This record gives sequence, structure tokens and C-alpha cells, in this order.
Amino acid sequence: METAGQTRKSSLGDQIVARINQLAMISETPEHLARIFLTPEHQKAADLILAWMREAGMSAHLDAIGNVCGRYEGERAGAPCLMLGSHYDTVRDAGKWDGPLGVITAIVCVADLNRRGRRLPFAIEIVGFADEEGVRFASTLLGSRAVAGTFDESVLATRDRGGTSMHEAMVGFGLDPDHIGRAARARRELLGYVELHIEQGPVLEERGLPVGVVSAIAGATRLAASLTGMAGHAGTVPMVLRRDALTGAAECIVAIEEFCRTDEVGLVGTVGYITAMPGATNVIPGKVSFTMDIRSQSDTHRKRAVADIVRRVEAIARRRELTLQIDVTHENRSVPCAPWLTSQIADAVAAEGFQVFELPSGAGHDGMAMVDIADIGMIFVRCCGGISHNPAEHVELADADNGARVLLRVIENFRPQQPGS
Amino acid sequence: METAGQTRKSSLGDQIVARINQLAMISETPEHLARIFLTPEHQKAADLILAWMREAGMSAHLDAIGNVCGRYEGERAGAPCLMLGSHYDTVRDAGKWDGPLGVITAIVCVADLNRRGRRLPFAIEIVGFADEEGVRFASTLLGSRAVAGTFDESVLATRDRGGTSMHEAMVGFGLDPDHIGRAARARRELLGYVELHIEQGPVLEERGLPVGVVSAIAGATRLAASLTGMAGHAGTVPMVLRRDALTGAAECIVAIEEFCRTDEVGLVGTVGYITAMPGATNVIPGKVSFTMDIRSQSDTHRKRAVADIVRRVEAIARRRELTLQIDVTHENRSVPCAPWLTSQIADAVAAEGFQVFELPSGAGHDGMAMVDIADIGMIFVRCCGGISHNPAEHVELADADNGARVLLRVIENFRPQQPGS
Repeated sequence: METAGQTRKSSLGDQIVARINQLAMISETPEHLARIFLTPEHQKAADLILAWMREAGMSAHLDAIGNVCGRYEGERAGAPCLMLGSHYDTVRDAGKWDGPLGVITAIVCVADLNRRGRRLPFAIEIVGFADEEGVRFASTLLGSRAVAGTFDESVLATRDRGGTSMHEAMVGFGLDPDHIGRAARARRELLGYVELHIEQGPVLEERGLPVGVVSAIAGATRLAASLTGMAGHAGTVPMVLRRDALTGAAECIVAIEEFCRTDEVGLVGTVGYITAMPGATNVIPGKVSFTMDIRSQSDTHRKRAVADIVRRVEAIARRRELTLQIDVTHENRSVPCAPWLTSQIADAVAAEGFQVFELPSGAGHDGMAMVDIADIGMIFVRCCGGISHNPAEHVELADADNGARVLLRVIENFRPQQPGS
Repeated sequence: METAGQTRKSSLGDQIVARINQLAMISETPEHLARIFLTPEHQKAADLILAWMREAGMSAHLDAIGNVCGRYEGERAGAPCLMLGSHYDTVRDAGKWDGPLGVITAIVCVADLNRRGRRLPFAIEIVGFADEEGVRFASTLLGSRAVAGTFDESVLATRDRGGTSMHEAMVGFGLDPDHIGRAARARRELLGYVELHIEQGPVLEERGLPVGVVSAIAGATRLAASLTGMAGHAGTVPMVLRRDALTGAAECIVAIEEFCRTDEVGLVGTVGYITAMPGATNVIPGKVSFTMDIRSQSDTHRKRAVADIVRRVEAIARRRELTLQIDVTHENRSVPCAPWLTSQIADAVAAEGFQVFELPSGAGHDGMAMVDIADIGMIFVRCCGGISHNPAEHVELADADNGARVLLRVIENFRPQQPGS
């Protein structure tokens, strides 16, 4: 039994890694992985994934926005489904695991059920979303929003860097922009949405755990700030007469870090971009622009933290006689995973012999859109060094296998939410 | 007497401002003042200044590097000279006072002597240096270095942005690059070098003084630093697991400011340039580069301060597990003004009824080169808001006049240094 189990398990991981590598060959350039929405690479990848779905015993098709959709019927045809999924587009110069791991693992699990002739009291559907990263049209979650029926049609007019609109790109791809609505699914068709994804952070590795149970997808506020003081000659203005915008910004950055570091419920705050003008070695910066990105799994906590941080930045600006301009450029609410689903995922993790560890997702995922039509759950798989959006992104074969074993167990033991529970 | 004096004084200021405006018309473009070395504007400006010199009773010529040189003989021909000067090139998008004020004020003073038929026991020479700013060939003080005999011939091979070498530009201008040495003057020909220049800082304005006596030209150390940590997703890496290069750099910037602010002898430290990589709102910066510019009129003090600052930056990097690379990119020693000359300048300031106030020059000046062949002294004239290297650079007419009165008094009361004193 143990030997047979080991063999089966290791073969799930092997299959996953082989397919991850096969899919990663489909890229805009061979040097840097980039698989962008509505390109020939999108088409080639879709064809490959659809073939894998069919090979796994699923009916499969490309939907109205370019998502790949597979369905594995349950004991009776036409039953509501447990939907599994993730995305198969990438950022530019991407790693090969972010997105595809969830799609491929789900297919490999269904293939395993199919090989064993196992049908469940519900259908299983897998969606490979066509655009989660939003690289081409600067709007994320296009695939899952179409499925959730919340696709914003105004994005069709958005143009990529080459001047092609999304509308034109869809037509060129062979899709009908007037019928995106056909990709939408109804709440009654779904029993839940479960996504397996790499963690994209270092927490599981730090704790020595192969998998984690996601509690929520954190909400985020992004702000753009600028501080304006007075530019001046680096040699001729005494320290006490300066209104240096960069030393002011530096004090803000240190204060933001300190504020988040001492937060007790996992708030994270990042200044990722900064520029000092005029930007010469021998000129005191007169103006500095920087961004802030504040995330928490609690919206209330995040909003209070943003207000606190803004107050601190305002106080620094006031004391230094700098003019502050500060604007919220982006905001999205946190999306909780459904406790009844996380509890089933936790059971599967425990049954596989791993410590159950809940963590929030600081990154955005398709579940943020899917939550509009289904309860969601997420499984994180450890990735090396927490590195993602980078060619060095890596998942050990053993962990790909661990993730698949957990997902398979979630599927086989899945109990739809009881009405009223 | 008072009335006559007022009339004469006001007319010096009027003449200066008229000529400042006339010279400012000679520019690469009419919108942004730029008068660059070895260009047609250089030639036109030289012709104009040479004409002013001759009109002031001086013999005048363009020297081997393109400096304008005028000589007003003393009571006996061929006597050593008190040399006055400044530069007539500009930065790009310059103000019209930085440099030209010193050249024009000196000419206006000599014209006044000449009008009165006044000859002194020594000659007066005025040099308008052709390149102090170093805009074109990225090497400063080219004009004064040629006069001091310290011109570095390797600069001749340097090319401007358009690909023209300094050698080629000189030939195109009608100068012989093989004979730059002919611009060099001998120490025995000079009794001293006195330069009048706008302060380019806010100290005189802050103290309500029209002029200042320069104690020394500060020495400067420039450093380039980079901190390398680990880039990561702004949402997925908890604060305690981060090695954020930007928060580290921000702590360094705050520490440098604090260190210089609490210095008791006028040290200034500036971080003028910073860049964070990869520089996206949602990515923790993995690498940050920034510059430091540290100045003091005492070389010992500056070197000790630089060592202290580097130690602090090293400690911050070590504590945050960031890799620090730090290099000195530029260093120049401080150049003291000669006490016997500053004392004569101070006497002239006092005689004009102004409080004598000594201050160091944080900016570099031609005196840094001239000190190799003569003792130097400098007079600073108040400029509005301390603004320089900017079209908003401004000197009030009354202050141009005040500066001219002080310089004229320095000239008329000039006593060469006694041997052995």
C-alpha cells in the first residue's frame, strides 16, 4: 500500500513538472518567458491545455474570452460542479509556475480519477484563465471576471503598447468581443471554487511546510505621494536652511516601515518606487515622488493603517515645510476564503500528514473575481526563496506532488456546503 | 559728497545690470540660457566682453584656450597685476548672474578708474574664463586651469554628446590645441587673484547682508553607494522577512542628514540622486543606488566626517543584511582664501558700511585653479532665495552696485602682500 501510494504520488509530481516545462516552451521569446493575452502563444498554450483536459477524460472548449474550460462529469450528468482553476498567462520574464501549476495540477488530479474510473456526486470543472496578470491591457483578472460575469466592457477600448485595442486583438484571435457575456457562469452551476497556486512569498519555506491553507486574499491600497521642498546647491545651502524633499521622503519611508513592522496582524507596507528631482549628485532634491502599497487581510485594519500612515507622512511634511500631495491610485477590498472550504482543505492537509497552517495571500488571484459567483478556497504550495515573477521562480518536484495529493484529497472528500450552514 | 557718491554708485549698478542683460542675449536658444565652451555663442560673448574691456581703457585679447583677458596698466608699464575675474560660460537653462557678474563688475570698476584717470602702483588684469562649469567636456575649470598652467591635456580627447572632441572643437573655434600652454601665467606676474561671484546660497539673504567675505572654498567628497537586498512581492513577504534595499537607503539618508545637521562647523551632506530597482509599486526594492556629496571648508573635518558617515551606512547595511558597495567618485581639497586678502576685502566691506561676515563657499570656483599661481580672495554678492543654476537666479540692482563698490574699494586700497608677512 505504502509502496503503491509512493509510486502514484511521485508520478503525479513527475507529470506536473513535465507539463510545467512543456508549457513554458510556449513563449514570446525563447530567452524570457512571456505568454501574453490574445497572442499566438496564448492560442498555442490553449490548444495544449485543451488536449491535456481531453486526455484526462474531460470535455473541453475555449470560452468567449479565451479561457480554457474542461468538464469532468459526476455520477450523473449535468450536476453542479466544484470548479478548480488558475491562470495560464504570465508576466514578462516570468517564472513557469505562477498560474500554470494550479491548472496543470487540477488536470493531473482529474486524470488520476479518470484513470481509476472514479466519478463523484458532482462534476469537476477546470478553468485556465486567459489573463490574470493584466500585462497587455493594464487591467487584471480579465479571464475570471468574464466567468464571474463582471467583465468591464470599457477595457475593450484599451490599447496595448503597439496601439492594438483589446477589441481588435479579440477579433484577430478569432473571438467575438460582442459575446464576452457567453463566458459568464451562474452561481447555481458552482458548488465552490478552489485554486492551487504557488505562495509567491517566503512564509511556508521559513516554516518548513510544503503547503498552506489560504485564509483570505488581502485587500490593498496603493498611494502616490510627492513632497516638494526647495532644490538648491549641495554646497551652498546650510543644513538648517534646507527644505530637502528626499530627506523628508526618507523619513516617511522609515516611518512606514516602522509602522508596519510593529503591526500585530500582518500588515505589509512597501515603497517600491521613488524618484528625486532634479536628481543630480550636487543638487538638493526639490521634489520627490514615491508610491506606497499597503495590504492587510482585514479591510478595516488596512483602512485604519492607511489613515495612520497618511497622518504620519503629513506630520513629517508639515514639520519639514514640504508640500505634500498624496492620492489613492488603487484600492481593492480583501476577499475572505470560505471557512467551510478552508476547513475541508485543512482536513486534506492534515490527512496528508502536514501541519495545517493558515496564511493570507498578499498577492491577488482569480478568486478575487470568482468570489462574486462562488465561495472560494485556496491552497498555497511552497516556492523556493519566496521568489516569483522572476525566471528563478521554482517549486521542488516533491512539493508539486504534495500540492497535488492535497488537491486530490480535497476533490475526493469534497462535501458541498449544506444549505444554511 | 553723499549725493555725488550716490549718483556714481547707482550708475555702477545700472551699468552692470544692463551688461548682464546684454550678455544673457547670447545663448544657444532664446528660451533657455546656455553659453557653452567653444561654440558660436562663446565667440560672440568673447567679442562683446573684449569690446567692453577696451572701452574701459584696457588692452584685451582672447588667450590660447578662449579666455578673454584685459590689462589696465598701472603707474608704470609692465608691473605685476592684481588679477580679477570669473567665468562667462553657463550651465544649461542657466541664470544670467553666475560668472558674468564677476567679469562685468570688474570691467565696470576699471572703467570707473579709467574715467577718473586713476592709475595704481600695480596693473589690473581681468580674466573672463571660457569654461568653469564643464558642461561640454565634463571637466570643470578648463579656463582657469590653462591660466594656472595645470590644464590636463588628456581632456582634449574627451568628446561632447555630439561626438566632437575638445581638440576638434578648439580647431573649429580657431584655437590651436597644441598651444594651450601659452595661456599659462607665471606666479611672479600676479599679486593676487580676487573674484566677485553671486553666493548661490541663502546665507547672506538670511542674515540681511548684501555682501560676504569668503573664507575658503570648501572641499568635497562625492560617493556612490548601492545597497542590495532581496526583491520581493509587496504583498507576500512579511515585514520581518524582508531585506528591503530602499528602507535601508532611507535609514542611511536620514542618518546622513542628522549627522550633518548636528555638525558644529558647517559640514553639509546631500543625497541628490536615488534610484530603486526594479522600481514598481508592488515590488519590494532589491537594489538601491544613491549618491552622497559631503563638503566642509576643513579637509580634516570633511575626511573624518566621511569616514563617520561611511561607518554609519555600513552599520545600517550590516544590521539589515544588505550588501553595501560604496565608492569615492570625486574628491577635491578645500582651498583657503589668503588671510591678507580677506582682511583687505573685509576692510572694504566695513568701509562701505556693511557688517563684515565671513562664510565658506560651498560651490567650486575658478580660484580653486588660480590658487596654484596666486593667493586668492573672494567677495560674495547676495542672490535672491539662494537660487542659482536656474533661470530664476536673481541679484537686485542695489546689490550689484554694493558688490561693485566693495570691489572698487578693494582695488583702490589694494596693498600687495609684504614679503615674509
